[in-house]
Amino acid sequence: MEEKEISQAVIGRLPRYFRYLGELKDEGVERISSQELSELMQVTASQIRQDFNNFGGFGQQGYGYNVEYLYQEIGKILGLDSEHHLIIVGAGNLGQALANYMNFERRGFLMKGIFDINRALHGKKVRNLTVQPMEKIEQFVKEQNIDIAVLTLPKASAEEVADKLIRYGIKAIWNFAHVDLKVPEEVVVENVHLSDSLMKLSYNINRKQSERGAYSGKKG
Amino acid sequence: MEEKEISQAVIGRLPRYFRYLGELKDEGVERISSQELSELMQVTASQIRQDFNNFGGFGQQGYGYNVEYLYQEIGKILGLDSEHHLIIVGAGNLGQALANYMNFERRGFLMKGIFDINRALHGKKVRNLTVQPMEKIEQFVKEQNIDIAVLTLPKASAEEVADKLIRYGIKAIWNFAHVDLKVPEEVVVENVHLSDSLMKLSYNINRKQSERGAYSGKKG
Repeated sequence: MEEKEISQAVIGRLPRYFRYLGELKDEGVERISSQELSELMQVTASQIRQDFNNFGGFGQQGYGYNVEYLYQEIGKILGLDSEHHLIIVGAGNLGQALANYMNFERRGFLMKGIFDINRALHGKKVRNLTVQPMEKIEQFVKEQNIDIAVLTLPKASAEEVADKLIRYGIKAIWNFAHVDLKVPEEVVVENVHLSDSLMKLSYNINRKQSERGAYSGKKG
Repeated sequence: MEEKEISQAVIGRLPRYFRYLGELKDEGVERISSQELSELMQVTASQIRQDFNNFGGFGQQGYGYNVEYLYQEIGKILGLDSEHHLIIVGAGNLGQALANYMNFERRGFLMKGIFDINRALHGKKVRNLTVQPMEKIEQFVKEQNIDIAVLTLPKASAEEVADKLIRYGIKAIWNFAHVDLKVPEEVVVENVHLSDSLMKLSYNINRKQSERGAYSGKKG
């Protein structure tokens, strides 16, 4: 029953374990040692053991982890054993891309609706969904028991839309708008700031170039 | 001249500083103390000072940082003072979404071409670009001095395409395919694993629910 706070860094690594274990399972691998997993995933075995110890260690025996069991347990920790109902707010290219991404459904993330302020998009089919006007969101969220909103809309309107959705009962926001949303403590926000990711890439290009000495003459 | 290794965690926070400083600059703010920046960004002032100390501290005076200077310096560290030439490989919804995203261009990330294996897409206009067949990539990368490839294609073909692009001279990959690419040490990869992000969101929904005790009866 006791719950200790697990760092977001550890949580952030769980989906990657889950992905590798799923692949091993699909390949018919039944057991794997932390050493083998370490080589496969290019992280240290001690990191793996430390991460898993946050969840009781998953019963590693001398001959390693049971792949199927570990896969299932990590899936449960990630909440993948329960269904989530999502809406997408913002039916531009990114919103449509996410609506079309079948893999989310396999993990229990069901895309239930897609909304946009742009009248030209209303009625447009995106896979099995039809783009609806914003005025329909409140009723839809309540009737369809929506718990996650995906925000793929411009920064300028993100905060206002998020506030409304939270009032309507949304518990979590997957935020692609390039702004840090202010939300009540009980609401979960996960940000995908694409520009930030691209800037990090750019930093690392520079760093590698300067390691190679290519730009050393330019440095002040 | 001496360069110490700066952790990727610090690097990962730089784009957020850059974003907030850009907004402050646009609002006409000239100076800001680490305490004020701390309140605005909801991180501790000591975290900010530690992060900045990796880069020499940016000359904070008793009355704080010069916003414009700090913005420029962080931009330079992120490599935003030089241009990058990008191609997008995979012209599905996500590839098209990224091609349409104007903000990248403002930061010097110029989308030069978009490619897809699907013949039905060849010739399609995406903003100022035309979808080209994969056979044209090699020449294009070499002639247009492309340094970054954006991979928005299925996992199954990502590794093979990445290998080719690296042979053609690509220095960095912004990878949206749900696989960890194996690349030579000198090539930079930045992953955007959307499923991982959604799983993290799902974990945090579960955690908040169990904190509220809503699901405590279900726990083993």
